[in-house]
Amino acid sequence: MIVVVTPNPAVDVTYRVDEQRIGTTQRVRSVERRPGGKGLNMARVLTAEGAPTHSVLPLGGAAGSWVAEQVEALGLPMTAVPVDGETRTTVTVVDDRAHPTMFGEPGPATTLATWQDLGGVLRRMTEDADTLVVSGSLPVGADPGAVAPWIADAVAAGLLVVADLAGPALLAAAAAGASVCKPNRDELAEATGHRDERDGALALLDRGAGLVVVSRGHRGIAAHSRTGVVEVAAVPDVTGNPTGAGDAATAGLVLALRDGADLPLALRTAAAFGAAAVLRPVAGEVDRAAVRRFLTPGERPRDPA
Amino acid sequence: MIVVVTPNPAVDVTYRVDEQRIGTTQRVRSVERRPGGKGLNMARVLTAEGAPTHSVLPLGGAAGSWVAEQVEALGLPMTAVPVDGETRTTVTVVDDRAHPTMFGEPGPATTLATWQDLGGVLRRMTEDADTLVVSGSLPVGADPGAVAPWIADAVAAGLLVVADLAGPALLAAAAAGASVCKPNRDELAEATGHRDERDGALALLDRGAGLVVVSRGHRGIAAHSRTGVVEVAAVPDVTGNPTGAGDAATAGLVLALRDGADLPLALRTAAAFGAAAVLRPVAGEVDRAAVRRFLTPGERPRDPA
Repeated sequence: MIVVVTPNPAVDVTYRVDEQRIGTTQRVRSVERRPGGKGLNMARVLTAEGAPTHSVLPLGGAAGSWVAEQVEALGLPMTAVPVDGETRTTVTVVDDRAHPTMFGEPGPATTLATWQDLGGVLRRMTEDADTLVVSGSLPVGADPGAVAPWIADAVAAGLLVVADLAGPALLAAAAAGASVCKPNRDELAEATGHRDERDGALALLDRGAGLVVVSRGHRGIAAHSRTGVVEVAAVPDVTGNPTGAGDAATAGLVLALRDGADLPLALRTAAAFGAAAVLRPVAGEVDRAAVRRFLTPGERPRDPA
Repeated sequence: MIVVVTPNPAVDVTYRVDEQRIGTTQRVRSVERRPGGKGLNMARVLTAEGAPTHSVLPLGGAAGSWVAEQVEALGLPMTAVPVDGETRTTVTVVDDRAHPTMFGEPGPATTLATWQDLGGVLRRMTEDADTLVVSGSLPVGADPGAVAPWIADAVAAGLLVVADLAGPALLAAAAAGASVCKPNRDELAEATGHRDERDGALALLDRGAGLVVVSRGHRGIAAHSRTGVVEVAAVPDVTGNPTGAGDAATAGLVLALRDGADLPLALRTAAAFGAAAVLRPVAGEVDRAAVRRFLTPGERPRDPA
């Protein structure tokens, strides 16, 4: 079982308006409301591939209840860890003219007690789990070190631990010995202070990460170990909605690594899932036929038993 | 008892950002979330004045549950009429530079059955009520005629019926014989097609309204009957937050009319409440000391028994 922690889940709202204009009252023509957060996107992709997952989400208030309902309606097994305050909302405003504008709430103030509760939930799940994924931002103001004991405990229990985090939480995950740290290039540079990708990856490896996988968008994906770098190209000529493509790529990486794939195949699987997500209009979904098309026949991901 | 119907209540969210910029990702520095809707603002003012109210709200989804909780926390007696879908949210984005930008969701699709349920609730309340207020927009796509039977039934039962509506719903309320129609000048012109205020008011009176009270913002307030117009000036030199001032003015009008005030006093009371609301930073509250200051000593509203 893959346990997926989303430390700061969200209600992702998209408003379509006729034309974005500051200082006006705008009639919202259509509203989309979806449970959001990188970990949730990943859990959806993993579940669609038949992999057993269990999502762990701090949730609070009416927005938290709504997320819980929606996650259950998606058929994702879940444990909610109660938090005070309202689970955050993100509002993305789109029209046919300008780039989207995104407003991101900071998320509820999360206390140490909540993180300890979450750690307790994770420890109880260790027996049935082979993989732990910690994915997405932490609430604004949260101690980034909160992720360290979750990761250290899971590593000690022999799990594959994948940390898709940013900033100080990424550094904390590396120091706690995460099997894989998976930032994108900007996140790596921002967290480590190294503009050079190899230098940044080495900084995480030096802290204790087992492997550093760096997504480069349309320039592919790379895995850094102490001994070197394995790189694969992105799937060419794929256009669509890139939202959630990185999460799908991480899901593909996790599936391949759990299956014992070697690094080149794991990276190609990640690239295939990322590209197949671009073909779908919403985050958290992949075009499964495209995944198979993007992988050569010998590289189909194993069907889960 | 004053029954207050808010046909399209809302979760009113205010996001403070550093600087509004289209096409960017903006970190929300602070979030305020309040139950909104003109009728709710009115009910809060009426309740603060000691008048017995009962709010009737179509509510749905997690947002509807949240509104119900908040309304109860405010101490407002309430009956929720369940609707499918999510109660609407409005998002207002503010910074220190530009005018606020407001995004208004259309509200849930409300079926005829919901309106009939609401009418049933109102009829059961008629025995204990002396006043019915119907206040605020209808959900986008709702039949504006839905308000007609509520108003006609209440008029037939001898209640004072105040319709603070706009567009075709305002016309429907007049035709149903509302005791008072209370648009602002823009709403009156838009609903009747008459730019001239007197012509617009006569159009509503011709349809069946008992009285048409028109709020003119800083230019005061007027009451039109077939025989003429009574006007009062606004309270001068009041600055602050005008949001909800119109709702407070309507609340003052209702209080005065229930108390048997003559029209000039009722209008002065409305103007005093409107101005006293401007002095408070949030909608739904008035500076009660200011109300008394703005009315001359002989005009204090009666303390409710």
